[in-house]
Amino acid sequence: MPRYKLTVEYDGAPYCGWQRQANGLSVQEALEIVLKEFSGEDVTVFGAGRTDAGVHATGQVCHIDLSRAWKGETVRDALNARLREAGGVCVLKAEAVPDSFDARFSARKRHYLYRILNRRPPPTLLKGHVWWAWRPLDVEAMDSAAKRLLGTHDFTTFRSTHCQAKNPVRTLERLDVTRAPGDEVHIHASAQSFLHNQIRSLAGSLKLVGEHRWSAEDLVAALEARDRKRCGPVAPPDGLYLTAVDYTSAMPVTSATAA
Amino acid sequence: MPRYKLTVEYDGAPYCGWQRQANGLSVQEALEIVLKEFSGEDVTVFGAGRTDAGVHATGQVCHIDLSRAWKGETVRDALNARLREAGGVCVLKAEAVPDSFDARFSARKRHYLYRILNRRPPPTLLKGHVWWAWRPLDVEAMDSAAKRLLGTHDFTTFRSTHCQAKNPVRTLERLDVTRAPGDEVHIHASAQSFLHNQIRSLAGSLKLVGEHRWSAEDLVAALEARDRKRCGPVAPPDGLYLTAVDYTSAMPVTSATAA
Repeated sequence: MPRYKLTVEYDGAPYCGWQRQANGLSVQEALEIVLKEFSGEDVTVFGAGRTDAGVHATGQVCHIDLSRAWKGETVRDALNARLREAGGVCVLKAEAVPDSFDARFSARKRHYLYRILNRRPPPTLLKGHVWWAWRPLDVEAMDSAAKRLLGTHDFTTFRSTHCQAKNPVRTLERLDVTRAPGDEVHIHASAQSFLHNQIRSLAGSLKLVGEHRWSAEDLVAALEARDRKRCGPVAPPDGLYLTAVDYTSAMPVTSATAA
Repeated sequence: MPRYKLTVEYDGAPYCGWQRQANGLSVQEALEIVLKEFSGEDVTVFGAGRTDAGVHATGQVCHIDLSRAWKGETVRDALNARLREAGGVCVLKAEAVPDSFDARFSARKRHYLYRILNRRPPPTLLKGHVWWAWRPLDVEAMDSAAKRLLGTHDFTTFRSTHCQAKNPVRTLERLDVTRAPGDEVHIHASAQSFLHNQIRSLAGSLKLVGEHRWSAEDLVAALEARDRKRCGPVAPPDGLYLTAVDYTSAMPVTSATAA
């Protein structure tokens, strides 16, 4: 069966998260519903990252198998036509890929952005799309402390108690804190994989550093304690975006797209 | 009575427009409600531009009179604390100004931004905050045609039939069309004042130019016809933002802020 890689954008606010659940509509289920309408088949969508309720994506990746070899553009446009009414999800790109491609297990690196609105007045146009931090943040202190967390560590302090990963060790390849236009502070995080709530836990603790309530040493001591109780307040999902997932190159199958 | 200049940001979607109306909550009324709560007085809010339902602002300006001389920061924070629950409006800045300051009549220039999302997939995170134009737009053609409308003209073609201005002549000081990050096309328009629906009318007609359905000459001919029926489809309010209003300098009164 022809396999497709879909790159997906969504506003997490109206959904109960990426993964199919009994208690509400997930992004995965929203896609599976329109895939059924389009193809007549029961299609399972496999995502690269299981984002929580309220978390957004500008570059989530998933794979699906269809019995017919459609053009990528046809799949993309047919799904978008059916997704448009609800308005919260769209397919940015659909490409034929080899059967060996697995959105989750072939992923080499995942990239996230955490957006903080750092100003005294509360958000209006960005409500639900940023974390509002009204105290002035020392971005240089945050970035410098963030650098201390790079590399391979046991991130027990910075993962949810519900995290199902057997191993709490992860390798953080990027953790940058920068100012951005419109009074925003951006945290960019990249790793092959993350623990549950890892970025929101890091963002919440980095905010304490930005407010000078924690020093960089406090952050490192929290990491080294390997104790969830040493984590700062977990940042809300509103500011978190899955922006991209990297795979080894030369993935798309061009022959199938010509069908 | 001490006069204050307020700089206001809002998401136009939940409001029936700037101006107080019988048929729904306006931004003006939302501000007047919290001003009453804060000061105990019936305060009238005078705005620089009467934005339509669904139109946003990142820099609307208005003036108010209060019986007490509060610090600007106190007025700003008190109003924001009361506006925060609804979430659609906030006060970016509150400054004491001389009694001669009038948000509407002292305005020297008004600046607007019209945001178009120019890509095949529909908007998700930007739904309600951009106009979705899925056909590829020739931005250079749009910008070059836009330049033909600069200067002083009778803009009858590009104003609503409901426009109440006696004189349809306006002086367009800026009309730029540029590509922006995230597949956006931005139209920047500046003038001392605009006619009702003028920018949305111009944006709708410029989109036809971008799609090569109109030439620059068609746009100029439409202008010269001074005939509302010659206007392209009016662009929706979703993409329009009042971004700034210019006044002559040295307006703020520093003595009143020390009260």
